[in-house]
Amino acid sequence: MSDMLAELMSALPGAVLTGADGTEPYRRDRALDPDAGVPLAVVLPRSTAEVQTAVRWAARHHVPIVPRGAGTGLSGGATAVHGGLVLSTERMRDVTIDTATRMAIVQPGLLNAELKAAAADAGLWYPPDPASFEICSIGGNIATNAGGLCCVKYGVTADYVLSLEVVLADGRAVRLGRPLIKDVAGLSLTSLFVGSEGTLGIVTEITLRLLPTPPPTRWVVAWFDSSDDAARAIAEIACTVRPSVLEYMDRIAINAVEDRLHLGLDRGAAALVLAGCDDVDPQRDLNAMQAVLERHDPSSVHQPPQADGDAIAYARRLAIPAVEDKGRLLLADVGVSIPRLAELIGGVEEIAARNDVTIAFIAHAGDGNTHPLVVFDPADVDEAARAEHAYGELMTLAIGLGGTITGEHGVGKLKRPWLADQVGHDALDLGQRIKTALDPDGILNPGTIFEDDHS
Amino acid sequence: MSDMLAELMSALPGAVLTGADGTEPYRRDRALDPDAGVPLAVVLPRSTAEVQTAVRWAARHHVPIVPRGAGTGLSGGATAVHGGLVLSTERMRDVTIDTATRMAIVQPGLLNAELKAAAADAGLWYPPDPASFEICSIGGNIATNAGGLCCVKYGVTADYVLSLEVVLADGRAVRLGRPLIKDVAGLSLTSLFVGSEGTLGIVTEITLRLLPTPPPTRWVVAWFDSSDDAARAIAEIACTVRPSVLEYMDRIAINAVEDRLHLGLDRGAAALVLAGCDDVDPQRDLNAMQAVLERHDPSSVHQPPQADGDAIAYARRLAIPAVEDKGRLLLADVGVSIPRLAELIGGVEEIAARNDVTIAFIAHAGDGNTHPLVVFDPADVDEAARAEHAYGELMTLAIGLGGTITGEHGVGKLKRPWLADQVGHDALDLGQRIKTALDPDGILNPGTIFEDDHS
Repeated sequence: MSDMLAELMSALPGAVLTGADGTEPYRRDRALDPDAGVPLAVVLPRSTAEVQTAVRWAARHHVPIVPRGAGTGLSGGATAVHGGLVLSTERMRDVTIDTATRMAIVQPGLLNAELKAAAADAGLWYPPDPASFEICSIGGNIATNAGGLCCVKYGVTADYVLSLEVVLADGRAVRLGRPLIKDVAGLSLTSLFVGSEGTLGIVTEITLRLLPTPPPTRWVVAWFDSSDDAARAIAEIACTVRPSVLEYMDRIAINAVEDRLHLGLDRGAAALVLAGCDDVDPQRDLNAMQAVLERHDPSSVHQPPQADGDAIAYARRLAIPAVEDKGRLLLADVGVSIPRLAELIGGVEEIAARNDVTIAFIAHAGDGNTHPLVVFDPADVDEAARAEHAYGELMTLAIGLGGTITGEHGVGKLKRPWLADQVGHDALDLGQRIKTALDPDGILNPGTIFEDDHS
Repeated sequence: MSDMLAELMSALPGAVLTGADGTEPYRRDRALDPDAGVPLAVVLPRSTAEVQTAVRWAARHHVPIVPRGAGTGLSGGATAVHGGLVLSTERMRDVTIDTATRMAIVQPGLLNAELKAAAADAGLWYPPDPASFEICSIGGNIATNAGGLCCVKYGVTADYVLSLEVVLADGRAVRLGRPLIKDVAGLSLTSLFVGSEGTLGIVTEITLRLLPTPPPTRWVVAWFDSSDDAARAIAEIACTVRPSVLEYMDRIAINAVEDRLHLGLDRGAAALVLAGCDDVDPQRDLNAMQAVLERHDPSSVHQPPQADGDAIAYARRLAIPAVEDKGRLLLADVGVSIPRLAELIGGVEEIAARNDVTIAFIAHAGDGNTHPLVVFDPADVDEAARAEHAYGELMTLAIGLGGTITGEHGVGKLKRPWLADQVGHDALDLGQRIKTALDPDGILNPGTIFEDDHS
């Protein structure tokens, strides 16, 4: 073992994994990046002080660090760098709920579902709900500014972050913001760090705003023979009502979910639209949404009993793993402004046909945030290449429609090649200047968002 | 006239004011900073291109630029710098409402009230509502991340900004973000620029999210003989209900407003609490809030007829100008976590007594964001000095309570001396590194938030 590694292991006893057995499980997130490097070591700190120790060691030896939450990222933001350190926050799971201020103070490794449960025990609610909420960490949610189903009404992760403690590239721990609802003292550094995917610092503590638990969501479900009709109905709902959920699944996703759950979903439908309202008195908006859906030629539309609506919402959350049963996925996260949803769906169908690949389509439709899922057999080299090509075309399509290559999963390493096409070279340069000012040696998650100068 | 100035006037014909008559009205914002400098010139651009021309001229000649909206700032963020340029956006007032995407595209000089009116014409609503909404500009709101009364439920300006066009210190115009509800491509630069008080760039176009108009707010009004009881009632409401408005006025503010409006307010009360709910069915929460208020020993509490409640809300909005009738103001903007509101109010009363000055106290109480108004006679040199001392003590008090020196007005030039005490030297350094990376010559609003290296 090198002196360097011995120094790390002696500084963090019991918190360093080495060798293939130790590091292999930490090389990739759910994006399964085929180009993942082999890290020198994995550190599993329990505290801010231990994170500082690891970062100071890395800074001293110019070793890149890839921070990692629960490893559920879908853009390769936690892909290991060759010869680098992976810093997993999985042992940092403390949570304190303060009912008097309606806030939670959490360590980054806490799972989203664990926070929701702790808040619920105190009669409170943490809204952001990525479909992966049972397995993803709050730190990862902060890193990507994660969204979910409730965001159409309740906003994204950034809307709940009041204060952060971060360890900077030089090992200093800095407190950003205070546990206050309104605070504009100095630059909005907290907001800058949310969504920075571990490139500016490592988040070690998070203060989050909680809300009172709203009434349960009541549902309207509509089935369409035409995806175009469904998309137009969604656009009309989105500009006239304020639903708490507005989701979309296409035929491929419906069938994949039905294969798992056997709910009796309509396998022949082109599209399913699931709309919800959680107002104290939801009937006005449920009726308004039903009326809009009826105007757009659905094959059926109704307000189901609570349990049936909840089951379809559960099915929607299960869509990604259900489609994954059919093959390896390239999971896009493209977004457009909502009136352009129909064009996006049409464009995705063209891309699937042109590249002869299967693309399932699900969407947080009320946000214009969609997940085309390119399904392929990794053993079929030609199909894998066509899938890769289609994945790139999805991003080019979204950019051409004035949209985004990522609505909630982050840029990571996989989408970086398309970032300049979306944001332009001047905005990219602005980000790079901030990155360089905060991490001059480029040790924090190199290759994510920004090009790795060393590679 | 200097060659330098002639060059500017020829590049921006009809858009440059010089001489005392031209520049005097642009030397100060509403903070009336006694140390305001005499600017070389004022420019009144109409377009992004004209802003770029002015910034390029300033960069070439190393002339500092102070950007300015409607001049209603309360922290001296638009105080002119001696020999510098003031850039007023007052001629940049275009507004376009897109009902299909529920967004507004506006130039920064548009008044908040003008945006609200344009949105209302399209059946939509722009929530952020500083008490000064009739006279303050959207650009100024962006600069300070302005709040208001509705923020307790609907959030602050930052929550509505989807995309910005900014002119950087080198004159480049950069688009940050896209008109999308969810977009996490690259660093959150849009969020960083909101609240940056003109120190990182000059905002020239803003894309804002709009909401459907909610039902009118219904009211509960409570009068208290003890400010402490009122503060405890507010803390209980804030952690159990989700009001759309939760405001506080003390005896001095009540009397100042009553002098103007003659509404029949209770001049003897120690405190007035105004709580509102705008749910489709507001009765549940109104009753819940009334029950909490009744538990905290009010002298009276009731749900007034709509017009009476609206009149008290109007009175609350008028509190600052009404107190200003009594003398010059030093207007604080300190915030604490809501359970500490009673301690803050007690501390403010002590500061008033110790310094023998009058301090009126109003608050967006549901956010913990308060405005102690130190009233003094500027002709009385001793009282003015005591007022200045009390103003500083208010900030030290808030910091000591874990709070903030500014909840919604910004740091400007007036609060900069206290900023390090709140955020700490490491966070200040982090901000300074970003400032230096984006404005290496320090020409953008020097002395605001950051120390002026040149002074």
